[in-house]
Amino acid sequence: MGRAPLTSGSSLELFEIDLDRALDLIRKSGARIVGVQVPEGLKRTAYDLTKEIEEKTNAEVIVSGDPCYGACDVDLELCRTADLVIHVGHSEMLEGDRLHDKVIYIEARMRADVKEAVEKAAGLLSARRVGVVTTVQHLHRMDEIVDVLEKRGVEAMVRPGGKRTRRPGQVLGCNYEAARNMDVEEYLFVGTGQFHPLGVALATGKRTVAADPVTGNVSVIDTVPMLKRRYGAIARAIDAEKIAVLVSKKPGQKRMDLARKVADLGREHGKKMVLVYLDRVEPEVLINLGADAAVCTACPRIALDDLAKYTVPVLTPPEFEVLLGMRKGDYILDEIE
Amino acid sequence: MGRAPLTSGSSLELFEIDLDRALDLIRKSGARIVGVQVPEGLKRTAYDLTKEIEEKTNAEVIVSGDPCYGACDVDLELCRTADLVIHVGHSEMLEGDRLHDKVIYIEARMRADVKEAVEKAAGLLSARRVGVVTTVQHLHRMDEIVDVLEKRGVEAMVRPGGKRTRRPGQVLGCNYEAARNMDVEEYLFVGTGQFHPLGVALATGKRTVAADPVTGNVSVIDTVPMLKRRYGAIARAIDAEKIAVLVSKKPGQKRMDLARKVADLGREHGKKMVLVYLDRVEPEVLINLGADAAVCTACPRIALDDLAKYTVPVLTPPEFEVLLGMRKGDYILDEIE
Repeated sequence: MGRAPLTSGSSLELFEIDLDRALDLIRKSGARIVGVQVPEGLKRTAYDLTKEIEEKTNAEVIVSGDPCYGACDVDLELCRTADLVIHVGHSEMLEGDRLHDKVIYIEARMRADVKEAVEKAAGLLSARRVGVVTTVQHLHRMDEIVDVLEKRGVEAMVRPGGKRTRRPGQVLGCNYEAARNMDVEEYLFVGTGQFHPLGVALATGKRTVAADPVTGNVSVIDTVPMLKRRYGAIARAIDAEKIAVLVSKKPGQKRMDLARKVADLGREHGKKMVLVYLDRVEPEVLINLGADAAVCTACPRIALDDLAKYTVPVLTPPEFEVLLGMRKGDYILDEIE
Repeated sequence: MGRAPLTSGSSLELFEIDLDRALDLIRKSGARIVGVQVPEGLKRTAYDLTKEIEEKTNAEVIVSGDPCYGACDVDLELCRTADLVIHVGHSEMLEGDRLHDKVIYIEARMRADVKEAVEKAAGLLSARRVGVVTTVQHLHRMDEIVDVLEKRGVEAMVRPGGKRTRRPGQVLGCNYEAARNMDVEEYLFVGTGQFHPLGVALATGKRTVAADPVTGNVSVIDTVPMLKRRYGAIARAIDAEKIAVLVSKKPGQKRMDLARKVADLGREHGKKMVLVYLDRVEPEVLINLGADAAVCTACPRIALDDLAKYTVPVLTPPEFEVLLGMRKGDYILDEIE
């Protein structure tokens, strides 16, 4: 298979998955049971990946059936059962323990051409010097992005992120280190969706232009609607008495120490706090527990992106400090280091 | 708290939870972190249990936020984090390993009086000798049930189940051993819902009367609608090519060997089989994988009870054998030993 396109589903035509490296490693390791974990948008590749691996190695394949939201979300139960786990679509994040050492990360590179969208976005830039960031799906296009900008006379700056990201210019929904402390007045985000460029704008406080290579849309990010929603959620939590502090079981989202700090802060302010440990945050959890509000120490997108799903306000840890009157000034985006 | 009623929610008024034993064990063990796991119907007790434990011991409490469907569904991640885990509402099922040894099972006894419903049900019995079964919530009423029947001149037989259940007369949605191999022509099931008495009737092939102590309803179980639905699901799976074999991560529902057997059988019959390992079986899993059908080796209720939720047929392992033409004769209910 290698770089040849997988053909059995429309989502596959968008992505290029380099399975050869994984097949090599499976053969060399002598793994007998191989786990396969793919994010939802690529779940349909699981059948083809299984077929390839079972035909080209002697391993039995077990596919992870639970949703997967990132490299933070490695299926540890699968790691306990399999000898090796192929994790598709995300770049390595965690390392060092016995279970994570079983994981092979295979990127899924989006085939979408970026040039046209970046050309178009360049027309919206107001600075001569911009920070460039993108997500793992488009990282292999970074040279092209820089090239297009330089040809338009824009100085494109790319800097490495922290330990949570692997490559210069890479941002995650929960980490914008690659966009921080840069001597620029403006950012260009290349990728799909509104969440990441909003994150760049909120994390840096700078003007951010977004270029979507799939739709071809470009825009200047407006943080005001999101900020209105967030301060609205904080206001709705004012009278909350019973507050659930959500802690994720997902290895890269687990912030138990932060959750304890949040619970202690709440108790000092007379709130009834309870630590809730869970794999998936869902509205039913809060309804069934009878919580008046929640503070989510798991993936920051849960509070910011899924607001409408919940019947009670779900705040990020920095927003909870605003609620308690402990934090004033600019809005602080929740990030995971 | 002990046997005194918890008062902060309507579901609590129905149940009696003996927390004193747990508090004693927590104190004696010196546990510093105590996990609390309760089924959905009792989730609202979590706040009160947390408060009681934190006030009466020196332990910190962490509540399991994921749904809990039985003693098969012990939160192992919570066991990894806590020193002790209080599991409410189910009787002990699994034992022997390091993680399960941390679990203290606290039954939630339903306050509902059973006498009236059993009196009423006795009028529907046609035999003079009946097997009596119930669920964990009503087991403490078994003597009363037997008493009512004996007074009506009915010989009430109660036999122990297998290793999956703890007490004579106890059945689970996945195990009817306490109703098998009895020299009776008829069964009385005491408890809520239709699933368990349907299971008794299907597992034994005998006439089954159900008495619901909460609603007061009594009925003779009709298995025909369920059987029609099941053979309908089998028929709809006839042309399925891609078949997902679902294996649960839940400790008491994990049947990996059976799943491998099912996958091998399917492949021998020309089907494309893939093993899927997951915590929660949900319609999106099968849609995202692009499966034409599934065989569920997890909780049997998923296939039997949730049929309408799924866009593709989900079969039990014995039903899959019917599909492949390998099993004729009476319908065999899927049970977990």
